[in-house]
Amino acid sequence: MQQALDNIKVLDFSRVLAGPYCTMLLADMGAEVIKIERPETGDDTRGFGPFQKDESGYFMYLNRGKKSIALDLKQPESFEVINQLVKESDVVVENFRPGVMKKLGLDYESLKAINPEIVYASISGFGQNGPYSQRPAYDIVAQAMGGLTSITGYPDRPPTKAGASLGDMGAALYTAYGIMVALFHRERTGEGQYVDVAMVDTIFSLLESNVMRYTVDKIAPERMGNRHPISAPFDTYKVKDGYIVIAVANDPLFERLCSVMDKAELTKDPRFYTDVEREKNEAALKVIIETWLEHYTVDEAVDYLNDGGIPSSPILNIDEICESEHTKTREMLVEIEHPIAGKTMIPGNPVKLSKTPSVIKKPSPRLGEHNETYITYQKNR
Amino acid sequence: MQQALDNIKVLDFSRVLAGPYCTMLLADMGAEVIKIERPETGDDTRGFGPFQKDESGYFMYLNRGKKSIALDLKQPESFEVINQLVKESDVVVENFRPGVMKKLGLDYESLKAINPEIVYASISGFGQNGPYSQRPAYDIVAQAMGGLTSITGYPDRPPTKAGASLGDMGAALYTAYGIMVALFHRERTGEGQYVDVAMVDTIFSLLESNVMRYTVDKIAPERMGNRHPISAPFDTYKVKDGYIVIAVANDPLFERLCSVMDKAELTKDPRFYTDVEREKNEAALKVIIETWLEHYTVDEAVDYLNDGGIPSSPILNIDEICESEHTKTREMLVEIEHPIAGKTMIPGNPVKLSKTPSVIKKPSPRLGEHNETYITYQKNR
Repeated sequence: MQQALDNIKVLDFSRVLAGPYCTMLLADMGAEVIKIERPETGDDTRGFGPFQKDESGYFMYLNRGKKSIALDLKQPESFEVINQLVKESDVVVENFRPGVMKKLGLDYESLKAINPEIVYASISGFGQNGPYSQRPAYDIVAQAMGGLTSITGYPDRPPTKAGASLGDMGAALYTAYGIMVALFHRERTGEGQYVDVAMVDTIFSLLESNVMRYTVDKIAPERMGNRHPISAPFDTYKVKDGYIVIAVANDPLFERLCSVMDKAELTKDPRFYTDVEREKNEAALKVIIETWLEHYTVDEAVDYLNDGGIPSSPILNIDEICESEHTKTREMLVEIEHPIAGKTMIPGNPVKLSKTPSVIKKPSPRLGEHNETYITYQKNR
Repeated sequence: MQQALDNIKVLDFSRVLAGPYCTMLLADMGAEVIKIERPETGDDTRGFGPFQKDESGYFMYLNRGKKSIALDLKQPESFEVINQLVKESDVVVENFRPGVMKKLGLDYESLKAINPEIVYASISGFGQNGPYSQRPAYDIVAQAMGGLTSITGYPDRPPTKAGASLGDMGAALYTAYGIMVALFHRERTGEGQYVDVAMVDTIFSLLESNVMRYTVDKIAPERMGNRHPISAPFDTYKVKDGYIVIAVANDPLFERLCSVMDKAELTKDPRFYTDVEREKNEAALKVIIETWLEHYTVDEAVDYLNDGGIPSSPILNIDEICESEHTKTREMLVEIEHPIAGKTMIPGNPVKLSKTPSVIKKPSPRLGEHNETYITYQKNR
């Protein structure tokens, strides 16, 4: 099958999460991704759980479809191999701390001298410049310093990070976007360039209008649980066996909700006349709604509300979303056959392209699986 | 200045957040984005606060550098204008509920008949197919049904959404990536295609290895506050005037921390010998660390720990990250001059490209500001 990134070769020095997820997105679209790993141990994530027959699920997911060369970058003979690979590559990706690639002689300036058309992307915690550039990058730090932690969670509880590593995943996404913009430019002009993305910057970017609340009104938004800043009832609500979402953002929908709850009198209560009033009195409204919901399970409540035209949803645990009909239909979990681990389910790609769809061509590579292919090939040239 | 997406024209039917952020990313890179808005009110977000001299900060941020045409898509004469614009465009973006564009005669099949090379991207809550495709999309629903809410927050508190609209922002990013992949393919082959991205799928994708914990071990990860699943001390900790992050993920770092705290005896405590033991006894360890931190402010503690080689960071409020030296140096807030609102600071672009950098060429448009240009132009052709 034809894919958009057929004939694109990516030389991947990245490790752990942000870099590997970025190059996974490229591999899914057809790029040949050659992962350079240190000998013996390889990418740290080969040692991260969960394990299936001693193979890391973490690694299998993020490195599907890639090739692996085990290479000690500090050995001079490695440089010959890298030199040849750089000549043949379109993209380089790395996520070391700024300065490390330069010490290895593998920074953008050095590789551009070998291949002037190269697109070279660096992902780091704080970017290639700036006051914190040399600090180590952890997702918890990116979420904390990027502002997301301060606005997540309940006001009477400490600031809370999001439960997934969004600093890494966000940086991966912006970088994949940046690489495609750079490749598009190169396709039109023959010019390569450098792409610099910082985890903290990407968290800050994901804050959306929260930033404007400060720059315009000088108000720093605070955490407010699951509440909506200007609408009510728009929150999570307790039911018999868990919690559900109800999302009512205008007056006609509120009237409909009252009728579904068989509490038409609420529409005449001045505390709840308008969205503005409801937001002010949302605590009182929540008590009324949760008292009504006491008698229903998640499934009953969500069905009942949706049948009545009220936007409502369950809060799915990870097992529930994995097993859902939605996930199946949307191919968001895909079975691969790994030579050691056997059959495994890994997340699909959420970008559905009609003509050049994403494909997981191969499972993740064994450490150094492609050494012979590439190194012998290089030597015979 | 030359930009990567010079000469790329985007016809933008999208509203509110996910679509507009996607096309903002394209506009920043040089694309001409023509926003089609309904007459009189325009994009809903023109009415969203915060307001600066009656201009919406929300709208100014997300629609910078775009053009605006006010057009009633239900009027037959609008179709002539759209028809001509589709012929001249490279990309179409929309985020209506699946089926709406078809009713308007503006779905992919219809527009492809006018311009076979068009790249057409749809963002929706649940995707163009699947059991929930017709349900309305709200960020709180995408986070809840995508699994993120279930693993965010503290175990003794209800599931918690992230404080920013990550369902929208994530979908915008994956779509921008998908559009660039499709444009790259078109550049090489002349073929257009359809891009379908769902908010729920993008939240599911951002869960990273949490999904593998279920598919491999059949364990659905649960929320654990700010704790690390396998390392300790790796969490947020209370200090005199707030909270800080400490990130210690190996034994040598733990020894260093004990020496910084002047509590060398802890390294000999069997509860804290190894990362595995520390993780098991993290509650006891937290008490010890927080007792020590009681005497320090955020700034004192973070400086002291970093000077001692321990990864530590503050948890910045949005005002603090906005005013930080980091944000300044990385140009993550940019001043624009809006004809009505005056000088405003809006978030910069986190993708730093060396040769074709992102540029905010113009402030957001007035509703219908470019009607005359385009409609007269069309009529004179």
